Amino acid sequence: MIVPASRPAVVIVGAGFGGLAAARELARTMADVTVIDRRNYHLFQPLLYQVATSALSPADIAWPVRGLLARQANLRVIMDRVTAVDAAGHRVITESGRTLPFDYLVLATGARHAYFGHDDAWAPVAPGLKKIDDATDIRRRVLIAFERAEAEEDMAERRRLMTFVVVGGGPTGVEMAGAIAELARHTLRRDFRRIDPRAARVVLVEAGARVLASFDERLSVSAQRQLERLGVEVQTAARVTDCSSDGVTLGDGMIPARTIVWAAGVMASPAGKWLCVDTDRAGRIIVGPDLAIPGHPGIYAVGDTVAAAGLDGRPVPGVAPAAKQMGRHAGRLIARGISGRGDPAEPFRYRDAGAMATIGRGAAVAEVMGIRLSGFPAWLLWAVAHVYFLIGARNRLVVATNWAWNYLTFDRGARLITGPVPPLPASDGRAPPASRAEHAA
Amino acid sequence: MIVPASRPAVVIVGAGFGGLAAARELARTMADVTVIDRRNYHLFQPLLYQVATSALSPADIAWPVRGLLARQANLRVIMDRVTAVDAAGHRVITESGRTLPFDYLVLATGARHAYFGHDDAWAPVAPGLKKIDDATDIRRRVLIAFERAEAEEDMAERRRLMTFVVVGGGPTGVEMAGAIAELARHTLRRDFRRIDPRAARVVLVEAGARVLASFDERLSVSAQRQLERLGVEVQTAARVTDCSSDGVTLGDGMIPARTIVWAAGVMASPAGKWLCVDTDRAGRIIVGPDLAIPGHPGIYAVGDTVAAAGLDGRPVPGVAPAAKQMGRHAGRLIARGISGRGDPAEPFRYRDAGAMATIGRGAAVAEVMGIRLSGFPAWLLWAVAHVYFLIGARNRLVVATNWAWNYLTFDRGARLITGPVPPLPASDGRAPPASRAEHAA
Repeated sequence: MIVPASRPAVVIVGAGFGGLAAARELARTMADVTVIDRRNYHLFQPLLYQVATSALSPADIAWPVRGLLARQANLRVIMDRVTAVDAAGHRVITESGRTLPFDYLVLATGARHAYFGHDDAWAPVAPGLKKIDDATDIRRRVLIAFERAEAEEDMAERRRLMTFVVVGGGPTGVEMAGAIAELARHTLRRDFRRIDPRAARVVLVEAGARVLASFDERLSVSAQRQLERLGVEVQTAARVTDCSSDGVTLGDGMIPARTIVWAAGVMASPAGKWLCVDTDRAGRIIVGPDLAIPGHPGIYAVGDTVAAAGLDGRPVPGVAPAAKQMGRHAGRLIARGISGRGDPAEPFRYRDAGAMATIGRGAAVAEVMGIRLSGFPAWLLWAVAHVYFLIGARNRLVVATNWAWNYLTFDRGARLITGPVPPLPASDGRAPPASRAEHAA
Repeated sequence: MIVPASRPAVVIVGAGFGGLAAARELARTMADVTVIDRRNYHLFQPLLYQVATSALSPADIAWPVRGLLARQANLRVIMDRVTAVDAAGHRVITESGRTLPFDYLVLATGARHAYFGHDDAWAPVAPGLKKIDDATDIRRRVLIAFERAEAEEDMAERRRLMTFVVVGGGPTGVEMAGAIAELARHTLRRDFRRIDPRAARVVLVEAGARVLASFDERLSVSAQRQLERLGVEVQTAARVTDCSSDGVTLGDGMIPARTIVWAAGVMASPAGKWLCVDTDRAGRIIVGPDLAIPGHPGIYAVGDTVAAAGLDGRPVPGVAPAAKQMGRHAGRLIARGISGRGDPAEPFRYRDAGAMATIGRGAAVAEVMGIRLSGFPAWLLWAVAHVYFLIGARNRLVVATNWAWNYLTFDRGARLITGPVPPLPASDGRAPPASRAEHAA
């Protein structure tokens, strides 16, 4: 195929919901599209907590980017990490030394978790949940905590091992807390001989006045009640002042715990820094109404790395449907710019499809088209919607099979401790005291 | 439950096919059974190559040991690594300092890969396939090789990146070579823009005169033909003299390759060393006809860590059904010893259920009850038997779904590069030469 030199180059950074949606809008254009991501897969992040709690496997919720975009002939995929954008020179620079020229650029680089300035101290003890390796790390920590508790002689230490603190009462925190409680109360129920996993303490800590603050207040109340029915202890108006390997410190005391999951702070990707443009406190780029970055014609930013406002002036939430809609919008405007047909500066309008959060088996809350649902109907809607939005018939079948199995039996098949495993304490096998102390340390 | 001090203690080391079978035989005895494994899961090793080649997820072929044995009330599971056996003191000693007293001991510790004395030099460049982490490591290497090739400018280096050498023509080697060839020729076919994955070179190297030496010679010929039809280059009578990151050296030259998979040598677990008993050259314990270790009454060894002979004098092969049968036999003899009923020294008789090896989509060989099958019928039998032997309805459903999907579409869903990823070369993006050289190194 002979390509005229005038084909405009579009670079899309990030193969999440926003980046993929932008790429797809450009399928029938004259553009040469490059999608660059440091991972080789697109991740369905809304279900990542199910990998962290042993219900699903990573491959059930992730798809190779190349496979997803293979049939788009005007597109290539590069696996690399972007380190800088040379806006004046219209080039993207990568870790491995690539320089990718562009006429149009879409930054769909997402967000990561952040620890209110305590990243160095808190990150190692309170992992967050953004990547597949995060999820298998949390899975390993949770499962090993039970293994250590089973082997532990000291009752206080055993209690500490069986305490799980989830920091942050947004949808991810609610889902993690509910899923850990179900894992302990149902799935692991018969697995141990010395400990009773049902006695595990699961605490959800939220700094604000209620969980799921972005939902209608009645749904927050319902979510808290559903969590408590599952055995989760919900502490609202509780601000975390320290996280360590011994537990979580709040204003009014300490929760001794060996396992902490971070679902509180979010920080946008460094895309704003690459361009030295205005960001909000969470590092999100402040874009114009058309999602273009002010002062940088041809450069768009979409998804969680952006602070955008809908036509009503309310901020667009950091959820998957919003990222998809923004990606589609940016892609469409670029296509218009290339073809010269249509308004290339049309403002983005966010269509709010509602919100859902699941809590456990038959427990959830949902707000869809002004209708509020709780409990089983909300959960059913959540399950159907999530299976529907998974990409590909294979994943839909496999996830639906796993969920049906899980629902019928409480079993969670993916309880694998993979990767490096630290030695466990051994007090149940008459270990010499010295060795015991060493492992408790 | 008050336990009389006289309940005999049985320790089973290893939760593979042999260990689990032994544990189950002891369910209705007066014994206190302890199963100890350094992993928290039982692995269906015969399908591990499908994880390494992106067809299945780890959790599809692995089950938490605690879950499998939860209903056996006289049994506990310990996650720990055995480091020694004090035969005189009747105690097992573990890494974390446990000492586990026993009246009966079953060593079901399996085998690992070995490199004919070159472990230090060859293991890092030619990973073998025994554990889940091995499989995800090989998956990462294979997928990254294609990513690097796509980005590589130098044609010789690109060729080297797209060459995959599998060392060892037993069932694992045949299955790996066939699966890599299918991955390249079918699954990845449309995924790249600069390389054609169908041009990948897959070489299966076997030191002996034919692949699948343990099968009937006609099936070896058929397997080789089926491999060649898939595009695998089969080199028999080819002895490997060196493995490096540049390739594999044979007697008559070198195959330049960046990815090597080791499926040749096997070395038994160190169980023989723990007891200072006679082993064969592969480290396998030479057991008596009843699978007890000579000179150590009450200590049995089963599965791949054992050199046992059937009643006909032929060696029992290192396959899953043999390990299961041996485990069941040892468990039964221990139960007889405890109850005082039945012959506690009955010799083990191996019932050969046949052998199978799969090569690819619709391609396999099988020898079952004296009947030899090749091609599609063998493959169908292989698929049905392997789904049947998987534990649990959930895994059967999920694996069957994945296979049906794979068969219909050639897609392999689990193509995820997880864990640490090295920077890839970047010659397609006009990288400065210095940086390029650095990454090619």
